[in-house]
Amino acid sequence: MREPFDAPAVIAAKRDRTKLTGEQIDWVVDAYTRGVVAPEQMSALAMAILLNGMDREEIARWTQAMIDSGERMDFSSLSWPTADKHSTGGVGDKITLPLAPLVAACGVAVPQLSGRGLGHTGGTLDKLESIPGWRASLSNEEMMAQLEDVGAVICAAGAGLAPADKKLYALRDVTGTVEAIPLIASSIMSKKIAEGTGSLVLDVKVGSGAFMKDEANARELAETMVALGTDAGVTTVALLTDMSTPLGLTAGNAVEVAESVEVLAGGGPADVVELTLALAREMLTAAGKTDVDPAEALASGAAMDVWRRMIAAQGGDPDAPLPQARETEVVTAPADGVLTHLDAFGVGVAAWRLGAGRSRPGEDVQAGAGVVLHAKPGDTVAAGAPLMALHTDTPDRFPRALEALDGAFDIGDAAPEAPGVVLGRIG
Amino acid sequence: MREPFDAPAVIAAKRDRTKLTGEQIDWVVDAYTRGVVAPEQMSALAMAILLNGMDREEIARWTQAMIDSGERMDFSSLSWPTADKHSTGGVGDKITLPLAPLVAACGVAVPQLSGRGLGHTGGTLDKLESIPGWRASLSNEEMMAQLEDVGAVICAAGAGLAPADKKLYALRDVTGTVEAIPLIASSIMSKKIAEGTGSLVLDVKVGSGAFMKDEANARELAETMVALGTDAGVTTVALLTDMSTPLGLTAGNAVEVAESVEVLAGGGPADVVELTLALAREMLTAAGKTDVDPAEALASGAAMDVWRRMIAAQGGDPDAPLPQARETEVVTAPADGVLTHLDAFGVGVAAWRLGAGRSRPGEDVQAGAGVVLHAKPGDTVAAGAPLMALHTDTPDRFPRALEALDGAFDIGDAAPEAPGVVLGRIG
Repeated sequence: MREPFDAPAVIAAKRDRTKLTGEQIDWVVDAYTRGVVAPEQMSALAMAILLNGMDREEIARWTQAMIDSGERMDFSSLSWPTADKHSTGGVGDKITLPLAPLVAACGVAVPQLSGRGLGHTGGTLDKLESIPGWRASLSNEEMMAQLEDVGAVICAAGAGLAPADKKLYALRDVTGTVEAIPLIASSIMSKKIAEGTGSLVLDVKVGSGAFMKDEANARELAETMVALGTDAGVTTVALLTDMSTPLGLTAGNAVEVAESVEVLAGGGPADVVELTLALAREMLTAAGKTDVDPAEALASGAAMDVWRRMIAAQGGDPDAPLPQARETEVVTAPADGVLTHLDAFGVGVAAWRLGAGRSRPGEDVQAGAGVVLHAKPGDTVAAGAPLMALHTDTPDRFPRALEALDGAFDIGDAAPEAPGVVLGRIG
Repeated sequence: MREPFDAPAVIAAKRDRTKLTGEQIDWVVDAYTRGVVAPEQMSALAMAILLNGMDREEIARWTQAMIDSGERMDFSSLSWPTADKHSTGGVGDKITLPLAPLVAACGVAVPQLSGRGLGHTGGTLDKLESIPGWRASLSNEEMMAQLEDVGAVICAAGAGLAPADKKLYALRDVTGTVEAIPLIASSIMSKKIAEGTGSLVLDVKVGSGAFMKDEANARELAETMVALGTDAGVTTVALLTDMSTPLGLTAGNAVEVAESVEVLAGGGPADVVELTLALAREMLTAAGKTDVDPAEALASGAAMDVWRRMIAAQGGDPDAPLPQARETEVVTAPADGVLTHLDAFGVGVAAWRLGAGRSRPGEDVQAGAGVVLHAKPGDTVAAGAPLMALHTDTPDRFPRALEALDGAFDIGDAAPEAPGVVLGRIG
């Protein structure tokens, strides 16, 4: 086959700040997937996109080309409306775990295709895999049956969705081109649109523990993704939420499952409950279900019932004791006062180094590893009292985890101004 | 071996407009040569350098790292001072052919390591290979012996000089990253400095037939290279010269050799003679030889004598008839008037398509192919009289060569303002 374009010419166009044509975008994404555009050509193009940008039309076309590289799912045969949620990733972000059964308990099915963690933010599948027996991989048929029966499924995304994105993401990861808003937005949205959800709520994190450190970039990413979803016919809303400090009191795998179960039992940390309810309300509204209050489904135990059925449907035992790490080290407060600052990134890196996350794809994670906080910003602490506990099976990891916490918290005189969990809404 | 740096971090630094450290540059050039930094990482870095630039210190370090990737030559054992010349490439640019023997005839040895042509500008070695028997490849010992004996050598650069540059140039060629001034400058200067010449004169072309289309970019490139040479202890000067129209009356291989011999015989087109003498004077001055006038060496036949010895030393027969193409097509003037414009790029592409150049490395070129001009800008032409003759062994190439000439010349009423051959001098 004679190729209609020449890779160096397409790269040079973006290098010289020219808008790419739809035909150029379709070709370059497809030809890269086929191996005709070489990795060294795509990485040069990715860097040119990162530095010179793409406009809304280019991003929409790029996203569509990635969707067209693979299969699409279709939930229209379900008797339920559907809503999905995507978080850009944060420290202690276990919200998917209570949220999916809660929204299902309110009458909207949640098909949640998730990933494994890489780096300091952890992955939803890694967390759930700490539940004895639970398995992440389902066939499309199993997934559809569970959705119709239980209303909620959290499982691994199949290899058939947006293979262009998988190949491109792996390339961006090693070429310093992850941080391009057009490429981040099209990566997330190509998978979510291909997945076939009827509505989508995006949780775009802002702060030290998030991918986007400042609100302006987070807002640009959120606006770009909402526009992409809307253009593709998916009702899409984004919340900008705080990730300057960890969500809840746990960062890890089993420790986050335990905290999620507390929330489903009507307890749990206030910030986790607040964000779970805020996202649930958005998902229900986006799916057209405005006659139910998720707070009631949480209080009544209806959400917990769905959780138990959802875990059991994927082979998990909801009553089995969760794994615990073999070794613990406690970090104590160096002075009396108020905890004025607790840095999400520092805590996330500590949990990661303790064994909760992986530094390369395919590595095993430790189910019991992680950080359990005893205080959050604004709390009063006494000198010598525990600030947090570090857990791992491999105590030689403690020194580097403690290093990550160096300078990650401050104790002062007055409580800091609390930014609130939800910082903004787009859509 | 544990690597001291991580490629994505080095790429991200330049992406974020941070100045690279000397250690980062040394490592990335060396690790790329060793295959530890992957092509897709180097191309992303090259694009970041293209768009975000490098300062003088970074470029000098990058150049030194490429020199250090291979061997260095040393001409200090010669009884002659040495001077080298490099042209950034133009249409009809045969200047090296008369220049090297002319400068040698004036007492300065010229070790000219040249390349083959790729694209529309042709290569010095391709031109000389049209001389029956002449060979481009010499061992280092043969080269030194010929330099001492004859004073001039034009031969192929060995694979041992700046191998990092060879690998990087091939990558830039397919990734839209050729047009980066820091990378162009370091590519040229790493080879020239590794070659070990005592002084260097750069002929930086400006105009449609040149790599640099406008004078500001050409001047920036020239200044960058002069600074690099000076910092490396090589007396370096650059001339900015016009490449809006072809040099002389020929573009091809054997046709350019014939024109060069005319110059050495005391004739030849005025612009070729002017530029040859200007560059010769710069080379002699840079080498500290200020007591001889190259115009005399041309008039006396001394330069022609060196030419004949130089060709014969490399197996060539200076008296053998040059190859001629089998087929000719004449382009005639469509009207009476003055030739106001004759575009270097159009003529270069026509010569290339006639078979004088190659479109991929390793292709054969036709010795007889090319374009012979019958008029230059400012000349009066009569309707129906020949403007130029196209030569090739393969007449099916005529239509595409004629296409390249479409719009490449204009006939008007008044002679255009002549820009002059030498537009500026840096150093």
